[in-house]
Amino acid sequence: MTTEALDSLWLDSLASAAHTLRSSAIRDLLKLTEQPHMISFAGGLPAPQCFPIEELALASERVLVERPLAALQYGPTEGYAPLREWLAARMASQAMPLPFEQLILTSGSQQALDLLGKLLIDDGAPVLVEEPTYLGALQAWRPYRPRFVGLPMDEQGLRTDVLAQMLDEGLRPRFLYSVSSFQNPTGVTLSRQRREELIALAARYRLPIVEDDPYGELRYSGEGLPTLAALDIAAHGTLRHVVYLSTFSKTLAPGLRVGWALLPATLVPRFVQAKQGIDLHTSSLSQAVAYEASRDGLLDRHTPIIIATYRERRDVMLASLAAAMPEGVRWTRPEGGMFLWLSLPDAYDSVVLLEQAIEQQVAFVPGSSFFANGGGANTARLNFSYPSPERIREGIGRLGAALQR
Amino acid sequence: MTTEALDSLWLDSLASAAHTLRSSAIRDLLKLTEQPHMISFAGGLPAPQCFPIEELALASERVLVERPLAALQYGPTEGYAPLREWLAARMASQAMPLPFEQLILTSGSQQALDLLGKLLIDDGAPVLVEEPTYLGALQAWRPYRPRFVGLPMDEQGLRTDVLAQMLDEGLRPRFLYSVSSFQNPTGVTLSRQRREELIALAARYRLPIVEDDPYGELRYSGEGLPTLAALDIAAHGTLRHVVYLSTFSKTLAPGLRVGWALLPATLVPRFVQAKQGIDLHTSSLSQAVAYEASRDGLLDRHTPIIIATYRERRDVMLASLAAAMPEGVRWTRPEGGMFLWLSLPDAYDSVVLLEQAIEQQVAFVPGSSFFANGGGANTARLNFSYPSPERIREGIGRLGAALQR
Repeated sequence: MTTEALDSLWLDSLASAAHTLRSSAIRDLLKLTEQPHMISFAGGLPAPQCFPIEELALASERVLVERPLAALQYGPTEGYAPLREWLAARMASQAMPLPFEQLILTSGSQQALDLLGKLLIDDGAPVLVEEPTYLGALQAWRPYRPRFVGLPMDEQGLRTDVLAQMLDEGLRPRFLYSVSSFQNPTGVTLSRQRREELIALAARYRLPIVEDDPYGELRYSGEGLPTLAALDIAAHGTLRHVVYLSTFSKTLAPGLRVGWALLPATLVPRFVQAKQGIDLHTSSLSQAVAYEASRDGLLDRHTPIIIATYRERRDVMLASLAAAMPEGVRWTRPEGGMFLWLSLPDAYDSVVLLEQAIEQQVAFVPGSSFFANGGGANTARLNFSYPSPERIREGIGRLGAALQR
Repeated sequence: MTTEALDSLWLDSLASAAHTLRSSAIRDLLKLTEQPHMISFAGGLPAPQCFPIEELALASERVLVERPLAALQYGPTEGYAPLREWLAARMASQAMPLPFEQLILTSGSQQALDLLGKLLIDDGAPVLVEEPTYLGALQAWRPYRPRFVGLPMDEQGLRTDVLAQMLDEGLRPRFLYSVSSFQNPTGVTLSRQRREELIALAARYRLPIVEDDPYGELRYSGEGLPTLAALDIAAHGTLRHVVYLSTFSKTLAPGLRVGWALLPATLVPRFVQAKQGIDLHTSSLSQAVAYEASRDGLLDRHTPIIIATYRERRDVMLASLAAAMPEGVRWTRPEGGMFLWLSLPDAYDSVVLLEQAIEQQVAFVPGSSFFANGGGANTARLNFSYPSPERIREGIGRLGAALQR
């Protein structure tokens, strides 16, 4: 047997789902941007200056001295009970009161997306996503081979009027996915009126909703809004139409990989059984450290520091864009989160722009990556949480120069 | 709309894969065994006395002081590079020399099982499993709906003669799954001759093999054997037919949820892309702590302590069984690992026995749980790593008393 035939052994055994996993030209291009001189607006990283390192070091020390088995032994699939109870109380303080039994810890919100795909998506089943939407959700769900149906957005978030029409015409998606606040990638927040309309539509058409809210606590301006989950609970006395996802990744540290899901009671047993099959449980060490750090109020002391840091960076990016962008370029003005969205004149291709930008040592993600079914060739996502204000000024200047050409 | 109809909202949206997730009567029965007076041989927990708590506390302190970003920031999907390199060197010292690029960190071996299911299993595709086999593998793979084909075992492990016949008759499974050393649930180790036969069959029939080796370092008697991966590398100069899985769960601590996979080079990109979709990466904190604890030789210092502890417990269990079991009961004599396997006379039903045992405050897992396609009603799995020698003596005595009735 030839070496070549032997080498194809595993590829010949691939499941059809594996063929949905594509290596991406854009990803290859972005690998070029991991050099020190590059100013990258491409990533989605929190600012390392904002990690509460000392508090997490103390928390980890306390856990391993006082309750080492909580951090080291196998634990329940549902998550570390004290953390579930603490988070349920925090969710209640954000107008999402639910028994802690409906709160399940996950290995980052990304794992919750995979679990929901496993539980809810069949080959060819329609799934409604914002257009554009979070790339990681598309990656999590593609192996389950849904038919993605894109929902157009404007500056108030997903267009509930278009949704109403789709539902009226008989579309019955497995669920609708929304990053409701400071969306990744656009930075847009679903307005209060649209939230209320969406929850009313959910009740009227029995529409399951997955609300992904990693950035909700990072608001820099404007007034706070109830989550879709909060509105659903208010309307029905319990969580009926919404699965709500959040995470410690943007408020404590992403390296912990600890997120959580609020689930309608009927979904909990299957969600837990599916999670048991995929990792038994989330890192006990990460969960115990997150609990130990959070229980004495770290989030409330620390989040204002993150907010002040990111607000400045957002403001610097907005001011730099106004100074550097040629006529015809538009961008969103996010009230929170980590990203904003650039729209170039229609004839522009942001993949070509990226190649030119890389020559100028500046990078971003072309917007087409975030569209489930193509489109957005003239758009781009810019991250403002990671680079310093100085590098944001310099980088947006370089981007403007690349665009002038 | 009635409350009932609303409550079925999410159940009506379930994917067909979700219906493979069953709540199990045995699991419900075993929930009764989580009481302090119960002597449980049902779990699969390491002895908490064997966790290197102080070393892990020191490692965590060092990491968070010296390299906090390695523990707190987002990291590469492939895993923390220093840990990959360190593990690749350790694998090389166990006759599995491979570039570290073929070693991918996973969130426990359980995650690797899920990933392999996602990559390799299609609806109805045949997958060969030992009979009995690791329950967690069945749980990981059932949502991908394979056709499990059971391979009979004897005291030398899976029957390669039966396998040869199946392959000769044209069976082409997506892969064969084997827990090659100190198998969970039986404690049986695949003999050297069978290992060599299996690797020869793999080459002859182009048979992909998934070797799961969580217990390999925990040998209490008998001579060490090369892994299937080592034999495959020796025969072909590189890893061709085997994916090899191992973990820190039995040597450092399961709560870290850090395992690793050695992969044939062709499978690496898909494996990494699939992992990115399901959790982005494994807990950075857990990986950095595992690395910091391991790099100065902790495993080599610490594993002998675990071995001495579990060897005593195994020996106490074997002696207690000899003293307490009525005629006609047989059991395996594992040379390592955490489990042994009890076979009752044919007419016995170990689920009924479990009910009686629970009345005597002693528990185990009925063997039928470990059979993919039914069978094993007269068998049981006993764990000897968790209970103390005293409790093993007492518990086996109680089990004998329950059996006498």
